[in-house]
Amino acid sequence: MVAIAGDSAAGKTTLTAGLVAALGPDRVTGVCVDDYHRYDREERRSLPFTPLHPECNHIGIMEQHLNLLASGHPILKPVYDHATGTFGRQERVTPQEFVIVEGLLPLHTRVARSCFDVTVYLDPPEDIRRAWKVHRDCSRRGYTRDQVLAELERREPDARAFIRPQRSHADIVARFHRPDGVPASDPMSATLLLRPTIPHPDLTTVLGDDGRAAHLALTRDEDGKPVDALYIDGRAPRELSRQVERHIWSGLDVHGVLPGTLGQIEPGTRSEPLALTELILLHHMLRAQVAATAGVAQA
Amino acid sequence: MVAIAGDSAAGKTTLTAGLVAALGPDRVTGVCVDDYHRYDREERRSLPFTPLHPECNHIGIMEQHLNLLASGHPILKPVYDHATGTFGRQERVTPQEFVIVEGLLPLHTRVARSCFDVTVYLDPPEDIRRAWKVHRDCSRRGYTRDQVLAELERREPDARAFIRPQRSHADIVARFHRPDGVPASDPMSATLLLRPTIPHPDLTTVLGDDGRAAHLALTRDEDGKPVDALYIDGRAPRELSRQVERHIWSGLDVHGVLPGTLGQIEPGTRSEPLALTELILLHHMLRAQVAATAGVAQA
Repeated sequence: MVAIAGDSAAGKTTLTAGLVAALGPDRVTGVCVDDYHRYDREERRSLPFTPLHPECNHIGIMEQHLNLLASGHPILKPVYDHATGTFGRQERVTPQEFVIVEGLLPLHTRVARSCFDVTVYLDPPEDIRRAWKVHRDCSRRGYTRDQVLAELERREPDARAFIRPQRSHADIVARFHRPDGVPASDPMSATLLLRPTIPHPDLTTVLGDDGRAAHLALTRDEDGKPVDALYIDGRAPRELSRQVERHIWSGLDVHGVLPGTLGQIEPGTRSEPLALTELILLHHMLRAQVAATAGVAQA
Repeated sequence: MVAIAGDSAAGKTTLTAGLVAALGPDRVTGVCVDDYHRYDREERRSLPFTPLHPECNHIGIMEQHLNLLASGHPILKPVYDHATGTFGRQERVTPQEFVIVEGLLPLHTRVARSCFDVTVYLDPPEDIRRAWKVHRDCSRRGYTRDQVLAELERREPDARAFIRPQRSHADIVARFHRPDGVPASDPMSATLLLRPTIPHPDLTTVLGDDGRAAHLALTRDEDGKPVDALYIDGRAPRELSRQVERHIWSGLDVHGVLPGTLGQIEPGTRSEPLALTELILLHHMLRAQVAATAGVAQA
């Protein structure tokens, strides 16, 4: 069971879709915990908090449902309709082999965090996230640019208080960004902080700490704690990422071939940094599955 | 936690309302498990089963939610709107001191049954239930008499297969009826089968086994098993039921006075049989609470 946390328009849906495409939709259950909003859009107008505030969400029920999914039980999940801002009909969700939980606050509480085998926090630079949010909310949710910017402003205190603190609880912090001086027309690069909270694939044999296209460097996180930082340049040659991919995949004791769908942002556009991010997550998901199966076999 | 099971229009809502009035709405959580319908009215048109069929309900989720309520946890409950035949917005339900669960199938599975301290099955004669259902569905749900009768016919196989078998799992079977020869204008009488599955109040000292207005008789149930049958005549004098009430109430180690609302069918109309049925249920609810509190104190 995987958590993908992050602020609105941080890229959660894109990453989730990539993992679903790689594993196959019949093996993966996707759950968006933003469906656990406590109030509809109309009610929120007269309330002092934004949808980012825990008080605005059924956090206790979310914990309960995550626990049920983690132990293989079905749930009856609420459904929030972003188009209308109201609640639709609840749906019965049965956990498949893999469960991907994405949303604003999946890592807010200890109980929720304890449900996951691997946790990810998406941490794009704020200017990139703002651009993504303006693009999405204007093109797909019917807002104007000014409305989106005003809403971002209004949400900032809650984002600081409740969304960003989840970063410190993630096993992997994924930051898609462009290094200084790289034009906006170039593909994004990624820096993945791989925290020693779970066993990451050993990349030291395929990557040095100074490669221009990709490198793995021991560094200190914002809080001073040591962490491995994996950098993948947006213009990394396909051959390099293929080599890393093969290395990660061969370290997994799984049948089947490396998924060919990795890194697809939209049909025909492949991102090497996204492909490697997905692959590292697949590594953890497949290993958790092997461990769970072994546990069942022992029991 | 109490279950009140029975077919459509068997009197579940009336009995529940009486218990809520007696205990006070802030001490009681009422849950109707018919909200766990799997399909809305439109979808059911093309399906071979009626709302009485377990396949037509989220039974596994119902079990899960009953377990959560029984252990003091809140649930996010689906809401089915009988007026429109569609699902409304889910609601958060927190268990208060007492939880009353009523509906078509609360006793269908062993797991569900295990959640309750006391279980009741309402078992009116079919002709009386039909009359109640026609009256309610025509006056409050906008159906014609012919529609209601046709629906009852259509539901009969599922009622026989799934609703009525719950009767054998109830601690108390309550049958409101009129003895032969009693005109329909007279108030209803009641026969309560008190099964030895829970400790009922001892009524042998206040009631004989041959009183005309009320009696307690050892008898055999449909399946041959011995059971106490408590009969209360619809025209039982107030003084007799007052005596029985005082006897039951004084046997309980609870503070407070006997609720004055017992037996109210509608404002101004009191039914002695309903009052005593409610009181026997209150006896079990209050005893279960004392036992739970003692358990907590010990722990």
